[in-house]
Order: sequence, then structure tokens, then C-alpha cells
Amino acid sequence: MKINNKHFKTIWYDKNTDKVNIINQSKLPHLFEILNIDTLDGIINAIKTMQVRGAPLIGGAAAYGVCLAIKKDSSDKNLQLSADKLIGARPTAVNLEHAVHRMIIAIRDVSANERYERALFEAQKICDEDIDHCKKIGGYGKKIIEKYIEKNDVETINILTHCNAGWLATIDWGTATSPIYHAFLEGKKIHVWVDETRPRNQGSSLTAYELTQEGVPNTIIADNTGGMLMQKGMVDMCITGADRVLINGDVINKIGTYLKALSARENNIPFYVALPTTTIDKNNKNLENVIIEERDADELTHITGIDDKGGLTTINIYPKNSQVLNLAFDLTPAKYITNLITELGVCNASEDAINDLIKK
Amino acid sequence: MKINNKHFKTIWYDKNTDKVNIINQSKLPHLFEILNIDTLDGIINAIKTMQVRGAPLIGGAAAYGVCLAIKKDSSDKNLQLSADKLIGARPTAVNLEHAVHRMIIAIRDVSANERYERALFEAQKICDEDIDHCKKIGGYGKKIIEKYIEKNDVETINILTHCNAGWLATIDWGTATSPIYHAFLEGKKIHVWVDETRPRNQGSSLTAYELTQEGVPNTIIADNTGGMLMQKGMVDMCITGADRVLINGDVINKIGTYLKALSARENNIPFYVALPTTTIDKNNKNLENVIIEERDADELTHITGIDDKGGLTTINIYPKNSQVLNLAFDLTPAKYITNLITELGVCNASEDAINDLIKK
Repeated sequence: MKINNKHFKTIWYDKNTDKVNIINQSKLPHLFEILNIDTLDGIINAIKTMQVRGAPLIGGAAAYGVCLAIKKDSSDKNLQLSADKLIGARPTAVNLEHAVHRMIIAIRDVSANERYERALFEAQKICDEDIDHCKKIGGYGKKIIEKYIEKNDVETINILTHCNAGWLATIDWGTATSPIYHAFLEGKKIHVWVDETRPRNQGSSLTAYELTQEGVPNTIIADNTGGMLMQKGMVDMCITGADRVLINGDVINKIGTYLKALSARENNIPFYVALPTTTIDKNNKNLENVIIEERDADELTHITGIDDKGGLTTINIYPKNSQVLNLAFDLTPAKYITNLITELGVCNASEDAINDLIKK
Repeated sequence: MKINNKHFKTIWYDKNTDKVNIINQSKLPHLFEILNIDTLDGIINAIKTMQVRGAPLIGGAAAYGVCLAIKKDSSDKNLQLSADKLIGARPTAVNLEHAVHRMIIAIRDVSANERYERALFEAQKICDEDIDHCKKIGGYGKKIIEKYIEKNDVETINILTHCNAGWLATIDWGTATSPIYHAFLEGKKIHVWVDETRPRNQGSSLTAYELTQEGVPNTIIADNTGGMLMQKGMVDMCITGADRVLINGDVINKIGTYLKALSARENNIPFYVALPTTTIDKNNKNLENVIIEERDADELTHITGIDDKGGLTTINIYPKNSQVLNLAFDLTPAKYITNLITELGVCNASEDAINDLIKK
């Protein structure tokens, strides 16, 4: 996708410098910065501090993390140690585990001196597959949008999204945004309501930013606003991403998703969740088995923006010594979800339907 | 109530200076500042820029606004003109209209040279009555809290509130917080989940601030978080205020209230709305007749806090030239509300029950 009309992916390996390049998302939308990373710790730091974020992109970054670990020390011992460190970087995203396990399988039977090349190949493959999956999600999702427009005869379709499940959350195209981009590229009139998504504001900082870069009309709203818009008939459809989908169809996604799903059901608005099937936690149908990440209070108390002199400034917006709880995700039970949109097709959020889809 | 252990009300007339004093809430929690106002325009500006806010306090401020208008020009013509200007300052709050009409009735038959004194008397009476109403709301609400603790045998009761319906929103005690303060003063163990309440953050800036000043344990959460806490059984009860209650029991309150009410019902958590009966719009049972205030985009795009040098700084947190929609209120249908808590007692959110209560 585009930034300032130039094509970018969110992560790529540069053969010339032998480094992994990422867009530093923690500085967006104020500063567009590319980081060059050449150590495992650099990747872990990028994941922890959310310089890279979004379930699929975390998977891609973790894969390159394994490469960089192997480059330094290609022993089995270091491979296992590095894998554990990577998986611990963010507990909720299942793609992280998937990618790391896939990397181990790909290189464990390869001789030590060939491991780095093999790892790079596999990491690239993981990223390429993610792009392919996102495109396919876009293809399936686009049809849902088109069908809605046709059936309801709306001139402009209003789609609400939460957090950033855009191309910045993946390698390219995005999950929740891919249907939007694909329909938009075919000339459909779309307007997106972008939930700000406190505390980290990935909606206003990333989703609004990328939609605007792609020319898609969008309006940022406070997270509190979506319910009222749905009551007033100003939302036609919701599409979000997912950080983890349990095999029974329950969706774990950015905190606040649940409230929008409740409101969508209450107001008879379809609520779709777009995801690559790598996001499905195939052995798990119980939230109790998932650690819901609790992040630093700083993410709520402090906020960064542009001051009146044009400088990037971080300020504390809360009373001194406030008590704060910062849960990163919530659970949206399957019953509130109209359908899942995956690279394999569209299905109900239920165990049978998901299993059928995966087996195809 | 207290700030730094000193007793304050949110608004008071100072005979020595002949000015109206207010706590400038737009600077809280970072700066505690008292403003001295001696013109109608000063009051209108204070209401518009939310130096004073909260339905009951807006009523009190408007009453003093009439005083200051009369002081300058006590003619009927100026009285009507000033009343219209005041009522237009914030369209959604019904208390504003009530207070202004009451002031007109109180002074219209009084000779021009006695009007200022009479107006001051009536404004003081409006404020005193509000304090009395808030105390009574506290008395009735306290019993609900005590009954819950007893019935469910909880050691600490967790109460979620949205926005600020605290003493800073009234003259003293608050509406939603009054039951909390009254129960707390009798030794009940209470912990309050404080919704940050974007875009203006009245939860984190005002409610958390005043609860902490009164010694009530509280934790600030992003507006997105309450649903998850309710799912996990971490919320026992919700209490919010109201900006306007329609005669059928529908509640118009700070944007985001609806989402919490939905989630409370879904998770079988009682949802109370505390209000003086002046907040009831007796002739209206249709949201279509209420103007939902749309406020400046600035309230979302810009945010003020303390920078690393300790200075008060305002920053822009959104991408340049973002489109933004800033609706100030939403509607919570009566069916989601367990009960209304008023100065006249507790009742169902229904037309019959409200009429019965008012007639008592």
C-alpha cells in the first residue's frame, strides 16, 4: 500500500544491508520513520513497544527475529531460547507462536551453516503468504460489501472499524481494511467510521492515517460514539480484525470490540471479523486459557502529539498518582458475530463452521 | 466537598467583590484555579467552554448569569435577551432552561431597582436546593449500595461510573457520586471504576480527581474497558448521572453511556441513573425533539496535559487534517436502566413511575 504515494510493506529484509526494515508505527501519524534492525533484541523490543503491532505483522516480525537470532548463533540451544523470548514478547497474539513454531520446524533439520539462509527464505514465505491471505480476505469481504450496497440500495456505505486491522497491522492490505480497499478500488463509495481506540489510539493514529493515504473517506470518532451512530442508522456494517479467534468462534480483539459488537446486534447491524486462519487458536475454546495482556499504565496516562511549535511532545493527562488499569484485549462471544471473513472463505463463528472451512 | 482538605462549592457569589466565583474545571486536574466573573458574557463563556459543566451546575451558573445581566441592565428587554443567550449556550442540558425560566418568573413582577437583589436570592436558592437534592439522592442511593453489599456479601463493592456526575457537576455532593460518598462516609468499602470519558476526559480529569480528594479508592480505565470488566465479574453496579431524562425514562447522558448500559444488561449488572428531578424533561418522550450537541473537533484532536518540564501543554494527537465527528451525548433507552435515583426517591425508568414520583 501507499505512503505519500510510494509503495511500502510494513516489514522487509534488505539484502544489501543484511538488516530487517520496519515502519516504526509508534511514531505514526506524526513521523514516518523506517528502522533497521539487526538483532533479536531489536525485534523483541519492536514487538514489545509496538513499533510493529497487529497479529499478522507480529508473526512476520517474529519470523525475522528467529533469522536474526540464528545469524548470531545457529545452535539448537539458541534457537529454543530465542523462540521462548519471542513468544513471551506479547502473550495474546496467537500468530506470534505460530510463526515461531513454523520457523523452528523449517530449520531444525537443516545444518547449522545453512540455517540462516533457510530461515530468511521461510520468513519471506510467511510474509508473502500473509499478503496473499489478506488479498483473499479482501476478495471475499468485497463481495459482502457489494452485496450490502446492492441489497440496501445505499449510495455510500458506512463501515465502522475498531483499532487498526489495516495494512499496518499486516504485511500489506490489512485484514479488516482489505475488503474496504478492494471494494474502494472497484469504485464503490465507502465512508469509514474510525474508532479512536484508546489507550494507544491505533484507530486515529494508524487506521485514519492509512485510509487517508489510500484516499478512502473516513471520520475519527471517540470510542464512546459508535453506539449512538448505530442507533441513528449512521452505520451500515462493522468490520474488525482479531488477535485470536477461539475454535468456537469467540473473538479476542482490541479492548472495546465487545461493546461495539453488543451495540451492532442491538441495532441489527452486521458485525464481521476479518482474519487469516493463522489467527485461529485451534485447540482452545475457553477464554480462561488465554492470558489477556495487561499493559503499562503509561499508555493511558501519557500521550504523544505535536505541540504548537511543531515538536513531538509527550504529556501526562491524568491527575498525579492516578490508579490505572490497562487491559489490552476483550472477548466478543461468537453469538454477536455475523460471520468470519478468512482467506479460505466466509463462515459462521462456530466450531463446526470453522472446522469445515479449515478442512476444505 | 474537599480540595486539598479545604471545603469548596463549585460556584458561589462573593458579596465583598460582588462577583460570581467558579472553579475553572477546564484546567483540572492539572491546575486548581478560581475564576471571578462579573458579566453575563463571562458566564456564557464559562458554560460554552465548560469551565463549568454538568447539568445541575450549568443550571446554577445560568441563574447567576441572569443576576449579572440584570445588574447591568434590569429592563424586561435585556432580561429576555439574556435568557435567550443563556439557553443557547448549551442545547442539551434541560436544567439550563429550567433555571433561566425560574429566574424570569421570580423577578418579572419585581420593580427594576429591586431585581438584582431578588435575582441573587433566587440564584442562591437554586444552588441551595441543588445541594439539598444531591444530599437526598445520596441518602436514597446509599441504601441501594448497602443493600447490594449485604445481599451479595461482597467485601468491597465495585461501582463503575461514566463521565463526571460528581460534586464538580453540581454545586456539592454530585448526583452519581453522592450515593458513593454517603456510603463511603459510613465506612462501606467502595472501589470506583472511572471511565476516562473521551473526548474531554471528564472521568479521568474530574471524577478520579474528586474521588481521590475525598479518599475514595478508584481506578481510571479507557472507555473501551468496562465491557470486559463486566464480563469478568469485576463490576457490581453502574451509576451514572444524566443530562436530560425524557418523561418515558429514556436517559440522555454523556456519549458512551449507552454502550455501558448495554453491557451491564448483558452481564446482569444493575445500572442506575442518579438525577435531580429538574433534569426530567416532563413534556418530552421523543429523542427526535432533543438537539444532540455536536461540539468542536478540537476536543478530539487536541489534548492538554503536563509536559516533562512540568508545564501545561496542548498537543494535536491526530493526523493532520483529520475528519472528526464529536457528538456530546447519547440516548440510553429506559429498558436498560434498573432504576432512577432522585431526590424524591427511587423509581423505575417509566412514564407512570416517574409521574407518580413527581406527583408525590
